[in-house]
Amino acid sequence: MEFDLIELIRQRTAQPRDDVRLGIGDDAAVLAVPAGQELAVAIDTLVDGVHFPRGTAPADIGWKALAVNLSDLAAMGASPAWALLSLTLPQADSAFVEGFVEGFVQLAQPHRLALVGGDTTRGPLTVSIAVHGFVPPGQALTRQGARVGDVVLVTGTLGDAAAGLHVLQQPARHDDGSSLREFLVGRLNRPTARVAAGIALREQAHACIDVSDGLLADLGHICTASGVGAEIDAALLPRSSALLGLYDNTTALQFALSGGDDYELCFCVPASRLAQVQADLSRLGGGATRIGRIVAGAGVRVRGRDGTWLESGSSGWEHFA
Amino acid sequence: MEFDLIELIRQRTAQPRDDVRLGIGDDAAVLAVPAGQELAVAIDTLVDGVHFPRGTAPADIGWKALAVNLSDLAAMGASPAWALLSLTLPQADSAFVEGFVEGFVQLAQPHRLALVGGDTTRGPLTVSIAVHGFVPPGQALTRQGARVGDVVLVTGTLGDAAAGLHVLQQPARHDDGSSLREFLVGRLNRPTARVAAGIALREQAHACIDVSDGLLADLGHICTASGVGAEIDAALLPRSSALLGLYDNTTALQFALSGGDDYELCFCVPASRLAQVQADLSRLGGGATRIGRIVAGAGVRVRGRDGTWLESGSSGWEHFA
Repeated sequence: MEFDLIELIRQRTAQPRDDVRLGIGDDAAVLAVPAGQELAVAIDTLVDGVHFPRGTAPADIGWKALAVNLSDLAAMGASPAWALLSLTLPQADSAFVEGFVEGFVQLAQPHRLALVGGDTTRGPLTVSIAVHGFVPPGQALTRQGARVGDVVLVTGTLGDAAAGLHVLQQPARHDDGSSLREFLVGRLNRPTARVAAGIALREQAHACIDVSDGLLADLGHICTASGVGAEIDAALLPRSSALLGLYDNTTALQFALSGGDDYELCFCVPASRLAQVQADLSRLGGGATRIGRIVAGAGVRVRGRDGTWLESGSSGWEHFA
Repeated sequence: MEFDLIELIRQRTAQPRDDVRLGIGDDAAVLAVPAGQELAVAIDTLVDGVHFPRGTAPADIGWKALAVNLSDLAAMGASPAWALLSLTLPQADSAFVEGFVEGFVQLAQPHRLALVGGDTTRGPLTVSIAVHGFVPPGQALTRQGARVGDVVLVTGTLGDAAAGLHVLQQPARHDDGSSLREFLVGRLNRPTARVAAGIALREQAHACIDVSDGLLADLGHICTASGVGAEIDAALLPRSSALLGLYDNTTALQFALSGGDDYELCFCVPASRLAQVQADLSRLGGGATRIGRIVAGAGVRVRGRDGTWLESGSSGWEHFA
């Protein structure tokens, strides 16, 4: 059965790439990294009921499992190339696999990402994906280079995925705002990996991370790695009209600061490059919003609309509670 | 907690390699493949109670999770370089992680394999590892090149791991043969990845696979991929003195033909190279035994000691039953 599942996946994900010397079907794939490129690699695992709600559609799981990995490549400024998939299922379930692969391929195809190997096993529903991308030597974006005076930006909007999870967790009491709820749930289930933005930020951003654990937690990682602090203006946080349409300002702010799973990029650029970077990212769609700045010190502080500092006890959303 | 576990793993697995530009601690690792080398990549997942018995020592799980992946690289003739680790645990359990990492490092260190990234999540005990190795262009061993007239060989001995599992599944009734039982259980829990043998077989073997599902199943994969058949002599199958000391000949043969998890290499070479290849592999330790030959046709047949063909209905040990 293992081989049938892998064969099904192979048929559906055929994505010809010259750099794949040997794809699915042997003990390992054989790949050629282009001359003059370094390799960025990441692995992420999604567990049923932990990283996605039980009952999530298989196609959404397939999309999301790849998206969270592409987001890691985006945060490094890497260009996606190949993936390995390890799928653990309670039983061989071709309907699940069909759906999963459909969602996976919908995201893989526009990125020209080839699935080059995999493994299916029996056990509790779990998806591990390892992704590989290319980046010119020395141009990978890291968490370490933020400097005092840098401007802090984020792509897209924040808090939507946390709101989407909240929406799913409580049954709708009326039909009002159903399209807003759908938008938020869509942001949870089908995050956009900001791959083109990450590539555009090479040699522009001093530091970059993707917002998976929540803005405060992830910007905190940049601060720790760079030995700096950050100040955020609550009034500047980009929030979707769906989020603001369904939640009061306090709740929406909480989601935007501490909600996980948005998979937007948070990055730091010198103030002199702000206008150019915003124009570049605007042309790619999604854009980027200035939300604060890097300061001397440590940790992230949030300034409220009245100019006072908000309490920032939350450490965001971690998978181990 | 996720970051504490990863930090613990990082401290214990520090393995300096010049080709690791950026290791554990960012969104992705950044790696440099040496000029003139292709990249071999594989992923394998072990699930508690499926791929190792419940109650297996954490250090044995750490060793085995890496070994089954190194075995995939060995089967391609690739030289190991880097690994990504995704560890899913029911709860943050530093004693488990300490043990797991100890076993992982015991095997990683002699292979100079660097752990470059990872992910820890909450959920049912599951380990996914992706490994990366190097192979000169065009020299990767595959399942596809076996030719009629080739000799079939295997490294080491067969059937020990299946016997080890059998030993664990039935409580020992007496103390006789406890060292034999320990040997067999050790073969199950701490398989030897035949990395040096795989490298030595580059440009020598026409086809190669690692025996993870059982000899009949895995040699069958070579036959299917190469469009040939194979004939095996039961009398030639290498079996350990522990296996033959604890089991009758019929049972030992069954384990050797269909037992999984031995992680020996099964490979095909032209008869003219047999002596040289055996001498080379003998010098590396473990050696290799001639067990049969490649013939026209399809499938694997087994000749008994009396010269008649044995019934070969078993398809070996697959993870999806």
